[in-house]
Amino acid sequence: MKCVKHGGNIYEIADKLGVGKEEIIDFSANINPLGLPDSYKEALVKNINIIENYPDPKYRGLVEAIANYHHIDNKYITVGNGATEVIFSIIENLKPRRSLILAPTFLEYERALIRAGSYVEYYYLKEENDFQIEDEFLKDIDENLDLIILCNPNNPTSQLIDKNRMVKIINHCKKNNISLMIDEAFVDFVDDPDQVTMLSFVKDYKNLYIIRALTKFFAIPGLRIGYGITSNENLLKNINDYKEPWTINSYAAMAGEVVLKDQFYIKRSREWIMAEKVHFYSQLKKINSIKVYKPKANYILFKLLGDKKDLREALLKKKILIRSCSNYINMNNSFYRIAIKDRKTNEKFIKALKEVLYES
Amino acid sequence: MKCVKHGGNIYEIADKLGVGKEEIIDFSANINPLGLPDSYKEALVKNINIIENYPDPKYRGLVEAIANYHHIDNKYITVGNGATEVIFSIIENLKPRRSLILAPTFLEYERALIRAGSYVEYYYLKEENDFQIEDEFLKDIDENLDLIILCNPNNPTSQLIDKNRMVKIINHCKKNNISLMIDEAFVDFVDDPDQVTMLSFVKDYKNLYIIRALTKFFAIPGLRIGYGITSNENLLKNINDYKEPWTINSYAAMAGEVVLKDQFYIKRSREWIMAEKVHFYSQLKKINSIKVYKPKANYILFKLLGDKKDLREALLKKKILIRSCSNYINMNNSFYRIAIKDRKTNEKFIKALKEVLYES
Repeated sequence: MKCVKHGGNIYEIADKLGVGKEEIIDFSANINPLGLPDSYKEALVKNINIIENYPDPKYRGLVEAIANYHHIDNKYITVGNGATEVIFSIIENLKPRRSLILAPTFLEYERALIRAGSYVEYYYLKEENDFQIEDEFLKDIDENLDLIILCNPNNPTSQLIDKNRMVKIINHCKKNNISLMIDEAFVDFVDDPDQVTMLSFVKDYKNLYIIRALTKFFAIPGLRIGYGITSNENLLKNINDYKEPWTINSYAAMAGEVVLKDQFYIKRSREWIMAEKVHFYSQLKKINSIKVYKPKANYILFKLLGDKKDLREALLKKKILIRSCSNYINMNNSFYRIAIKDRKTNEKFIKALKEVLYES
Repeated sequence: MKCVKHGGNIYEIADKLGVGKEEIIDFSANINPLGLPDSYKEALVKNINIIENYPDPKYRGLVEAIANYHHIDNKYITVGNGATEVIFSIIENLKPRRSLILAPTFLEYERALIRAGSYVEYYYLKEENDFQIEDEFLKDIDENLDLIILCNPNNPTSQLIDKNRMVKIINHCKKNNISLMIDEAFVDFVDDPDQVTMLSFVKDYKNLYIIRALTKFFAIPGLRIGYGITSNENLLKNINDYKEPWTINSYAAMAGEVVLKDQFYIKRSREWIMAEKVHFYSQLKKINSIKVYKPKANYILFKLLGDKKDLREALLKKKILIRSCSNYINMNNSFYRIAIKDRKTNEKFIKALKEVLYES
């Protein structure tokens, strides 16, 4: 098992190109382009000295803020150093023998499963079906499986599993004694998050584990803060008993307390994504030599048709970084993922892409 | 295995007392009282937006800063979310079957060993020998052991293993194929760190693992940043292959790059500790009803003689928090650990302690 490449590694690229990293337009990381909320900047400057103390090992303020934000019980929440810590620790404690993940999907699930000694099966999403889950998904799922991990909306496809289907899946899992982990890291970017999230099922389904992150929506990937929600209190107790202490630093914990209350930022972000998702998609659709998959989240999967040009390399020459999907299972080097950014930057991208494809 | 109680949990105490946490004088966490370096505050305010990007997964700037600070090779360094992550990941990768730790010592070693499935043996430090390691230490150490963990200076005793003895130990370990982890988290506070650290042995001893933290000396326990140094490159490769990505957040990584170059802060801190260690110790020595162990680091172990008063509770009434050592193996509720703080605060402590002991 190796370290895998993710989007957002502008350090390596800047080194390689011999330019400052601020010169690169990063379409490879799916981060809210509104940037760091002002509410957090103000809180940080005011509370700069909080790091002179150890963090609260129970992160009470942070847990409380999350509970209030979602109207759920404090006791169902576990917080971590990014969603990744939560994913790794839930898997480590579930100790699944056989697990099922989508192909393609976020790469860290497989790493965490392999680290925990699980056998990993893949559900191959079909290109001809726009990489959406089909009815047959449940057919092969039985009690031989211990864990299913679904990323919803899925990364890198930006496709959604609708709630009706998800309800069928969770019920089927419950019946067959299968744990279901749903990573909703990007759910805040879908048109109607309340219609997608399975949070309201947590209380009644002890086999359900929901993963959330503040990273993407609040533009704080450098801070590392995520959380898990489940009513499996035994598992939460095990996680707390075995975990390393103080994995979230104080500035990150404070961010959770501040940004979840920032209604102004949340509203502006929703306005941006609603408008820009439609606009950017419609502009990209006009380009003949790519096939664009209609995005449900704040990033877009597309396929380069025809020639075998390395689009990532070509755009890098224009200091634009995109995510090649070649290291995902069931993808290849014709597939690319790009973030949806602000109007001006998206237009820069369209222009550059057209130039690279000789369509200008 | 349970979560263990450490010093520095002012959140729980403040809750319990119903006061703000800033009202509590915290002698339970061993943190440099000079507080957050100004150099870091300035860098933070200037670079507040760096968290809009993911951290560099390889933390190149941080590793470089550490390498320069210690004049060692980049390739020997692994960085982590506090020393704790490094300790946990080295142990997880060494997979020791039998390990030896001191009693008493820092509590997380035992937790990490149990989590990794190791059998844990204890070397009981003797009270009559001021909790120092004796010559017989090596007698029972043979190839049945896989790992020895030494904390130097040791926590909570503030006692030192001198270099001659340490050289004997590392050689004995090498001969018997035993890994030796030396946690030097507090070495910057000893009178002559260069005379204590085993850093210069790393290159020639692949069985040596040195742990360091920036937490204590640079007063940034809330930031979480530590590192390990070893020439066992196979192990470092394994750690990197299996680790969760981005465990150090960007503000923490930046701290490492800034504070290790802050010669002014380092000099002032050394002046403080040199003067205050002697002074505070001599003042405490004058109190008849406690036995004080001469400190080598920035904290002091003492024993309450005679009556069975709960000193921690008594001092809490004066809003002073100290560390009871009752949850350390080979300690009991007569032992307490206190940090060395600035002159004025230390004097407050002496006064309060005397009052509590009715010696005023």
